[in-house]
Order: sequence, then structure tokens, then C-alpha cells
Amino acid sequence: MKPIYFDNNATTKVDPEVFEEMTPYFVELYGNPSSMHSFGGQVAEKIKEARKRIADLINATPEEIIITSCGSESDNTAIYSALKSHPDKKHIVTSMVEHPAIKNLFQHLEKDGYTTTFVPVDNKGRLNMDVFYDSLSDNTAIVSLMWANNETGTMFPIDEIGAELKKRGITFHTDAVQALGKIDIDVTKTNIDMMSFSGHKIHAPKGVGGLYVRKGTKFSPFLIGGHQEGGKRAGTENLASIIGLGKACEIAKGHLDDGYHKLRSLRDRLENALVEKIPNSFVNGDLENRLPNTASISFEYIEGESILLMLNEYGICASSGSACTSGSLEPSHVLRAMGIPFTAAHGTIRFSLSVFSTDEEVDLVIEKMPEIIQRLRDMSPFWQEAINEGKVTV
Amino acid sequence: MKPIYFDNNATTKVDPEVFEEMTPYFVELYGNPSSMHSFGGQVAEKIKEARKRIADLINATPEEIIITSCGSESDNTAIYSALKSHPDKKHIVTSMVEHPAIKNLFQHLEKDGYTTTFVPVDNKGRLNMDVFYDSLSDNTAIVSLMWANNETGTMFPIDEIGAELKKRGITFHTDAVQALGKIDIDVTKTNIDMMSFSGHKIHAPKGVGGLYVRKGTKFSPFLIGGHQEGGKRAGTENLASIIGLGKACEIAKGHLDDGYHKLRSLRDRLENALVEKIPNSFVNGDLENRLPNTASISFEYIEGESILLMLNEYGICASSGSACTSGSLEPSHVLRAMGIPFTAAHGTIRFSLSVFSTDEEVDLVIEKMPEIIQRLRDMSPFWQEAINEGKVTV
Repeated sequence: MKPIYFDNNATTKVDPEVFEEMTPYFVELYGNPSSMHSFGGQVAEKIKEARKRIADLINATPEEIIITSCGSESDNTAIYSALKSHPDKKHIVTSMVEHPAIKNLFQHLEKDGYTTTFVPVDNKGRLNMDVFYDSLSDNTAIVSLMWANNETGTMFPIDEIGAELKKRGITFHTDAVQALGKIDIDVTKTNIDMMSFSGHKIHAPKGVGGLYVRKGTKFSPFLIGGHQEGGKRAGTENLASIIGLGKACEIAKGHLDDGYHKLRSLRDRLENALVEKIPNSFVNGDLENRLPNTASISFEYIEGESILLMLNEYGICASSGSACTSGSLEPSHVLRAMGIPFTAAHGTIRFSLSVFSTDEEVDLVIEKMPEIIQRLRDMSPFWQEAINEGKVTV
Repeated sequence: MKPIYFDNNATTKVDPEVFEEMTPYFVELYGNPSSMHSFGGQVAEKIKEARKRIADLINATPEEIIITSCGSESDNTAIYSALKSHPDKKHIVTSMVEHPAIKNLFQHLEKDGYTTTFVPVDNKGRLNMDVFYDSLSDNTAIVSLMWANNETGTMFPIDEIGAELKKRGITFHTDAVQALGKIDIDVTKTNIDMMSFSGHKIHAPKGVGGLYVRKGTKFSPFLIGGHQEGGKRAGTENLASIIGLGKACEIAKGHLDDGYHKLRSLRDRLENALVEKIPNSFVNGDLENRLPNTASISFEYIEGESILLMLNEYGICASSGSACTSGSLEPSHVLRAMGIPFTAAHGTIRFSLSVFSTDEEVDLVIEKMPEIIQRLRDMSPFWQEAINEGKVTV
């Protein structure tokens, strides 16, 4: 059974064109780009081309791109670099809805003696700007705020925040793992000092990511050793995957107009149909400022895990939160921070589409979901209780 | 022109069987192993199998293997973990002939206030055991010594060192990037606490490596974030490459007997013929304790870079030192530590073979090298001077 893969915020299919571009660099052209011979030299040229393609997607220069092994490494690199650059500053700021890569890192740093501010959000997932600005001081070493939320797709006002932080001279990092390739990012128009991204969210393979570091930003390497990446990241270059990331960025750039308009209308059709057909369901997030591919829908009084199991029987892949926290029985920290009631947060499903998603796939999900939800509600004591208490309309 | 690739200590060809095993996990079976749906679950099973294969190669348990993005990440992880585990100990020990991954990391830590001992070696690259043991104290947080040298193939007495460090209760890390798959490693027979290795040195792709951490060793993660790798390393699993590393380990295990005997005799034939045919040349390293694939040969009074350029014209790939330090005009720190005279260190070439190397390839190198060396010596003022001074026999 070919899956209906609506879990693209967890990971994406490698684009066949990307894989084709990578293929020669495993068995045939496997040189070490740092080697003296031309067999190594020719692959160094391909890495140069890939770095240019990555930079082009965000209007950066190739020298501003550090290639890493994943978004988490990029995040660790950015945060630790900022802390080393400001050894006297002991306050760090992020939001309550970050991906575990940043959330857990900040909690770890808290144990190491840093004062942390986790800025709250409102019920649409929008950052509380008053609390945020009030938290900043001369002691703030770095602000790290995600560009777009992985669970709801809600986007923070990165332009506004960047402008304000520049005025105050505070280093600004953004985790753009979910935003890259889905919205138009131009680093020359936004005051970001560092920006993390990941290959496997944009149809490049897993195991490669990157960090944009604006020219002039004080930087300390995280991974110490050889002089790869202009002395900014040790380790033999991950040749084929870097070439794949370059190609994926080139393709993503081509999709920024048409591809994502189509994606948005597909997502909207799925979302509207489900909320219309299924009572006591609603969409989460800031509907005015969202990624075009993400739908977070709460189905009240049932368990998300059970919905996923039943979807799985039809080959439909979705998620009840971040893949990085799956297995946990706690409802998502993102939905809790938004104040979504437990009865709804528990039954929340994230559908995340890609440019490979089709109308037929959306049709099938629209067809199957109402009966799945009804079957689960029929078995749910919480649903019965809600009926008895007159809380829901059946 | 198909290259004659004798630079396998820099990086290796991905084994076609390894690539075949990886191929489905890019475009078809691309799930996130942490996802709830069976599309993700099935790839989690493949990672489990790969981890078992990796562990089997060194007789470890799968739980003792942390998969990383490269040998350098493994080294950083091991060293920083040991330092965090012993916050009161400020002395660290390594050798003068380590790979830049460890050498540069130790130099970095020196700036951070650690006292470092770089233990010297003799003219065969053997560790000075007296200096080594004398350097150890209650203040020593970690000893990191490479299993086999990347330039000469010389092996340190890891068994003896491990036994002694265990007695003294000092954490022992070894960089086994060059040793893995080329010699039989059994972690149950050697007192190693942590051991780094890398995929692309054993015919797996670049961008994946590992760290063995003996059960019971106190461990702190280096990359903080999601709970992958049993909470020991954040970041979405590098699916295809991990599967490739598992397959490469399985294949390497099969080669440990026959494959490496053949490799050793091929290397010996190359080495003996070159030293016999070319006057004023000699082999570097500990001939009694060496990797089976590595030949480091000094050709006096000429430049290694020039030799490489001329070899390159015949499609022969070799190296004048570590790829990670190429571009530097300094002769190798390894050869300098061994006290090899500058006139010889400058003209040193490393040929590193693999199980894919053939008799025909060795024949061609044996045929071409004498004329290359002669042509370069004819142009070398140092060679003329040496003749005039009666230092060489022509």
C-alpha cells in the first residue's frame, strides 16, 4: 500500500531529482574534497555549487552558510556560539512553543546556571510581545525564536523582532527548519544573525542541515577538529547529502510562487472539509500567519494516538505532535502553552502536506476521517460524559 | 580515466552492496523512525538491525553504540562527556601524532584552561610509555590515544594502555577511525571506555560515524535536543546512512580474515618494490605493528606535492598527509614528531589501499613511481646539493 504521506513536518520524501543528483557521489565520485588529487578536487567543486544553491534560496552569500549534520546541530552551534561570544551575559530568551531541539537545550542551559525566559503565547500561538520585550536586558546573550511552529505552522513576526533586537544590539537566532522552502526568506531584508535549517524537511536526505551566520557575526565553532567549512565546522564533508541539499534548495526556490499557492489551497480544502463534516473540531494556530502546508486540527474528547492508529490502517500518515516527542503520553507542550483544553489537545492531529501531495489523497482523508472520529467517539467515555453534560452537539 | 585510488585513509568508495542496501530509504521508505505510523515504524526496525551489525563488528551491545554524524563529532562527544563527568579534573592526555580532530580539540581545550600532555613518540611512531605513565595523576580527566595512525598506520598498544588506565581509574578514549574494520577489535577484551569510528573510512557513506560507550561509563550528551539515540544524541536519525554503516560493518566483519591478509600482501609488495627500485627512500612507522593497508614512504630531497601532481596525471590518487590538513605547506606533524628529517618528511607519500585495490593497480604504481621520482630529483636543487655533498648514492 502506497502511503498517503501527510507527515511532512516530521520528514519528507527525498525528491527523485535530488536523489538522481546525489547518486554518482557514493560509488563513483567518492573523493575527499580536501584531498590534493583532482579526484578529490572535482567533488570540492560540486560542494561549492551546492553551497551557492543553498545560499541563493535565502539570498545569503555562500560564505554565510555552514553545513551541519542536522537542524539540532545547527541550533546547538548557534546557541553555544552566542554564549561564548558574550561570556558575561547569562540570560537567554526563547518561547514556550519551540521544537524540542531548542526547548531541551534551553532547559539544559538553565541547569548550567543560565537564566532563561520562555515567552508565552496566546490561544492562537502568537508570541506575547509585551512579555518578550520586557524580558530583554543588557544581560541577554541571545534570543532564539522559531520562524514557524512545527505543530501548528504559526509564524512569529520575525521581521519586527529582528528590527527591534538589532536596535537593542541583542544576537538573534531563528530556527527556520519548518519555514525554509515554504515561505520566501530573504536574509538581507530581515535582521537575523543566525538561522538554522534542515535538509530532510525540504526533500533532501536526512543527516544534513545548515546554519546561516550573517557576515560580521562573532562565531565560535561547536564541532572542533579539522578545518572544513572555512574552519567553522570540523568533519569530512557529507558529500552526497550536501549535493542533495543544494539541489533541494534549488527546487524549493522554484516552488516558492506556484507550488505553495497550490499547496495552500489543498491544505485549506482538507481543513475546511474536516471541520465542516466533523462536529466539535477546530483548527489550531494563527490562521492569518501560517505555513501553507500545515493543518493542526483538534477533535474533542478522543485520543490522537487512536486516530493515528486508525488512519494508519488506510495508509494515512499523520502526527499527534512532534515526531521528536512521540511516545510521550503528555499532550503537546505547544498546545498546552496555547491554552487548548486537555479534552481537545489530546485529540489533535497534525496533517502536513508537501508539493507531492495530491487532490486524490486529500479526498481520501476527507472521506475517512468522519467515520474514524465517530467510531472513536462512540467508544469514548469522555464523549458520553460531554453529551450527558450537554457540552457537545451530536 | 578510472582512478587508481590509493587514498583510502582519506575516504573510501561506498561499497556497491552498501549503496544498494541504502537506496530504498531515500525516495521510497523515507519515514521518520520516531513517527507513530507504521511507515515510520518500519524504518525504525532497519535502524535497530543496523545498530546490531555495527555492535557485532566490535563485539559490543547495540545499547553501547551512539550513532553520530562523523568521527570528529564522536571525538568531541567523548572528550566533552569525560570533562563534564569529572568537573574537578583539569588535566588531559593525548599523543603528538593524533588526527587533527583530537589534536585541534586538545589545543582548543588548552586555551580553555586545561593542562594538556601531548605524549611524544619515537622515530617509528611508537608511544613513549615512560613519559605517558609519568604524566598521569589524580587530576587526569581523560586519556585519548588513537588506535592506529592515519598517516603511517602505526598502532599504539591499546590493550596494555587500557589495562593500566583501568587500574588507575582513568577514563580512556580511543580514536579508532582508521583501525575499525582493518583489524579485529573486541571491546570485551580491551579496557576502552569510549571509541570513535567513522563510516566513510570503511566503505559506508560520508556523514555518519559512531561512538562506542562502554555500559556503565558516565555519559553526557554533546548534541542536546530530541531524545534520539536513547537520549544520548539529538537529531532525526540519518536513516539511509545508518543502514549503510550497518551493512558496511557486516561486510567488514567478513573481510577480517582473508580480505586483510590479501590487502597486507598487496601493500607489502608495493612498498618493497618502491623502496628497492628507488634509492634514498624508506618506509615510515612501526613495521611490526601497522595497519595492513597503509604505506608511508619518504622519498628524500623532493616535494610530496609535486609527486602527487605527477601521480595525478596517471590517475593515481595518494596523499602527502592527512586530507584534513592539506593545503598547508608545513610537513606533517606526525612525521615531525617522529623526528623524520625535513628533507625526507617533505617528500613523503601515503599510499592507503582497500579491499577494492588490485594487483594491476599496484603494478602500475610500481612502474610509474621510479621515473616520477627521478624526474623530480633531476629538477631539485636539494638533490643536486646532496649529491655534491656526497650524502646520496645516485
